[in-house]
Amino acid sequence: MAEPIDFYFDFASPYGYFASLRIDDLAASHGRTVRWHPILLGAIFKVTGMKPNLQQPLRGEYLTHDVGRIARLTGAPFTFPDSAPVNGVAASRAVYWLTDAHPEQAKLLARRLYHAHFAEGRDIGPAETVAEIAATLGHDRAAVLAALQDPEVKDRLRAETDGAVGKGVFGSPFFIVDEEPFWGWDRMEMLDRWLATGGW
Amino acid sequence: MAEPIDFYFDFASPYGYFASLRIDDLAASHGRTVRWHPILLGAIFKVTGMKPNLQQPLRGEYLTHDVGRIARLTGAPFTFPDSAPVNGVAASRAVYWLTDAHPEQAKLLARRLYHAHFAEGRDIGPAETVAEIAATLGHDRAAVLAALQDPEVKDRLRAETDGAVGKGVFGSPFFIVDEEPFWGWDRMEMLDRWLATGGW
Repeated sequence: MAEPIDFYFDFASPYGYFASLRIDDLAASHGRTVRWHPILLGAIFKVTGMKPNLQQPLRGEYLTHDVGRIARLTGAPFTFPDSAPVNGVAASRAVYWLTDAHPEQAKLLARRLYHAHFAEGRDIGPAETVAEIAATLGHDRAAVLAALQDPEVKDRLRAETDGAVGKGVFGSPFFIVDEEPFWGWDRMEMLDRWLATGGW
Repeated sequence: MAEPIDFYFDFASPYGYFASLRIDDLAASHGRTVRWHPILLGAIFKVTGMKPNLQQPLRGEYLTHDVGRIARLTGAPFTFPDSAPVNGVAASRAVYWLTDAHPEQAKLLARRLYHAHFAEGRDIGPAETVAEIAATLGHDRAAVLAALQDPEVKDRLRAETDGAVGKGVFGSPFFIVDEEPFWGWDRMEMLDRWLATGGW
């Protein structure tokens, strides 16, 4: 069985959202599965000295225009959230709370959170909102709120973000397949080709 | 006649080099021509607060790996220059010296300079090197060296870089077609599609 693809994303990243809608199908078409890793780019930007795209002059305006264009091109439901760039700590922790014991539920929750933020434009920063969204999948709200403060869950998110830095991840989305890195939604065609050809 | 495509690039940008090898053919297939604008990203980074990709931790290593991969994929001749990121002031000025009176010669010189830097790995920073490369196209070395210090040529490069900022350009390569902006070598497929469909 071929190795899974590692998919790194920040819940604040619209390009990560667009990638999340496609990566599992893309991987499956090559007999691969995908491990989803929500990470905190804010922590990574401290290493790289960068700022969120949205907060960079010129680039922020380009991004705002570009994501609408991608949504129209791909047919992805999209609403630019007033809360952008959102704080993805609670959302990411909720996903890691489920990742080991229930990986498919973790992925389902990640999709639901991304959808709430970028399709419905909701602010998924508050723990209460994350718990509410998790509840729509049958999770107990109180259990989710407790998990968001669980030191083990907190450590896991930190460790995943540190681990991502250790593998060279500096943006979202970021894919690693068989140690080959691909950065950006706009590199998914190249990733597809890499998987089809075994690399070049 | 449809409007030309504006193609902005920094001579230090390997992605600009890869784009330069393809943009005129891409444009021609849609009945368009291309205006080449060498610019100085260093000046633009002062506006956006960014650093050259190569000097960013993690991203610099990714870039170094990525450009080799693109060269193998596209068949573009490529040598990672020891002088990267090169100072493109002299090269850019030489191009603008020719742009108005001899636009095709300007483009030819830009290609030759990019080739010297990224195919042969030469340092195209020094004025003498730029004059030497221009001489291979029949230009007089002394005339080129004089042009590189001509206040009008200097002003032109500054004005082009400022003008690029005014149009929202923040990276290389950057394309603008009918006011629609596209950033990055990896967006040339989207640009192609935009030209084919008239946009969406």
